[in-house]
Amino acid sequence: MLLTALEYLGLFAFAASGALAAVRARLDVFGVIVVGLTTALGGGVIRDVLLGIHPPTTLRNWPYLAVCAATALLVFVFHPQIARLRRAVLLADALGLGVFATAGTTIALDTGAPVYAACLIGMTTGIGGGAVRDLLLREIPLVLRKEIYAVAALAGAVLVGIGHVLRLPSGPVTVVAAAAVVAVRMVALWRRGNAPVARGADPAP
Amino acid sequence: MLLTALEYLGLFAFAASGALAAVRARLDVFGVIVVGLTTALGGGVIRDVLLGIHPPTTLRNWPYLAVCAATALLVFVFHPQIARLRRAVLLADALGLGVFATAGTTIALDTGAPVYAACLIGMTTGIGGGAVRDLLLREIPLVLRKEIYAVAALAGAVLVGIGHVLRLPSGPVTVVAAAAVVAVRMVALWRRGNAPVARGADPAP
Amino acid sequence: MLLTALEYLGLFAFAASGALAAVRARLDVFGVIVVGLTTALGGGVIRDVLLGIHPPTTLRNWPYLAVCAATALLVFVFHPQIARLRRAVLLADALGLGVFATAGTTIALDTGAPVYAACLIGMTTGIGGGAVRDLLLREIPLVLRKEIYAVAALAGAVLVGIGHVLRLPSGPVTVVAAAAVVAVRMVALWRRGNAPVARGADPAP
Repeated sequence: MLLTALEYLGLFAFAASGALAAVRARLDVFGVIVVGLTTALGGGVIRDVLLGIHPPTTLRNWPYLAVCAATALLVFVFHPQIARLRRAVLLADALGLGVFATAGTTIALDTGAPVYAACLIGMTTGIGGGAVRDLLLREIPLVLRKEIYAVAALAGAVLVGIGHVLRLPSGPVTVVAAAAVVAVRMVALWRRGNAPVARGADPAP
Repeated sequence: MLLTALEYLGLFAFAASGALAAVRARLDVFGVIVVGLTTALGGGVIRDVLLGIHPPTTLRNWPYLAVCAATALLVFVFHPQIARLRRAVLLADALGLGVFATAGTTIALDTGAPVYAACLIGMTTGIGGGAVRDLLLREIPLVLRKEIYAVAALAGAVLVGIGHVLRLPSGPVTVVAAAAVVAVRMVALWRRGNAPVARGADPAP
Repeated sequence: MLLTALEYLGLFAFAASGALAAVRARLDVFGVIVVGLTTALGGGVIRDVLLGIHPPTTLRNWPYLAVCAATALLVFVFHPQIARLRRAVLLADALGLGVFATAGTTIALDTGAPVYAACLIGMTTGIGGGAVRDLLLREIPLVLRKEIYAVAALAGAVLVGIGHVLRLPSGPVTVVAAAAVVAVRMVALWRRGNAPVARGADPAP
């Protein structure tokens, strides 16, 4: 129940982040909806393809799609106001990352995947949607450029994996791990603690 | 039989569209063939991966590959003449979109996918090849920028889904739905009826 | 045993090539590791998704990931010295291409795929990782621009397929075919024998 609510919050957050990026790339209303949907549903589709769940869960539940399309449409109409809520968007994006990375790991473990593979697939679930969004919009993916993004997702996935090995109940573990991802992202954004660039390669202006 | 003929026409159209885009991006003859193949076969591979058909059908039938490679080679040799046939290329592209979106939906329904998932997978089959082409050539995908492209594919897929629910025979329904997609695309191209861009985001010059 | 050694050499080579490209794109240390991993493991993941092996083998064996991450980290620290070893990097990349294309074909044949499909999937395994690397870094994929790259991979895959049809032992055939790929790539690099660009489309400056 709590997990379902969190999942919809994650879909909402990722759909909004995709739609905002599409508005900035000057796409029309249909392009904005397609990018919003792809960002929100992409990670789950990649997860199900890797786990062999056919057809992917995210393509079988229409409420998922309805929530994402409505969110993208709202962003299209109200984007000037939303752009001002920059902190809320970043928080929502962190929440989405945390929920998808940890829930993805739990789902992979439930299908019988080994712990090691489940953690990698969980991390991929979290960062996949955003990577697809940036590829579609012809950006170098944020996950490659930004503060501790993939590492935060991996940390959450590993926490779920540890909980699984210790036979802790998966629901509470997922919530705690998702909260840990959000906390790591918030600290990273707050400190702007970008990891170092290799010597001799000046940062882009 | 009619469906098979339409399918080869779709492969031919998409291979030509991919090869033309590759020639314009100044790729060599092998690059042109690779992009032509990827554009024509990509949607079907994505469809089969989502449906769990292993290995993908399009990779098991050599006539598919032969038609696409021959088409790409012809485009490489005769591209100045073909570029002048702009209307024929756009018509063929619309035909490919219609055939792949509707046949993809029918195939998904045949494997037992729920109607809702089948429509989404059909739409993805139609627009997938072109999206991969644009990603490879580093363009913002046409599907995100152009007149009623994804919506036309979705409309065709939904028509097939409605026919399935009403238990109409799948062959004729697919042909009618494909024709509807082509008609929608033609009207959209004729009217240049681009959907609106969000307020405050000026169209690119 | 020989094959396993070759496979690790291929992972090492592709991880280094991905990490070097990421350093040049000015990514931070985490981005460099992500691109190195994606380049080295990407081809195998695509292969397993096409063959229906869930979860993908490359995500189940932690030594694969450890070798790739360590390689990427070494490249990040020592990249000025490595960049001088340009010939070694090109040789290693050719070795990786050969090993992955031929081993991918052998694995596909082992899962019962038809010879024709196995060759295509083997070629895709060889060129997949590099294509993903270039997409992530927003380049037109090398496979579309460079000397006889996809063709070399396909030639190696077809040699394995011929060996399979003639019922030759798969181990030695794979090694010979991989060596053939490396030889073709070396000759292509030595002669800079780029294939012709279409008439009227001047080569990029």
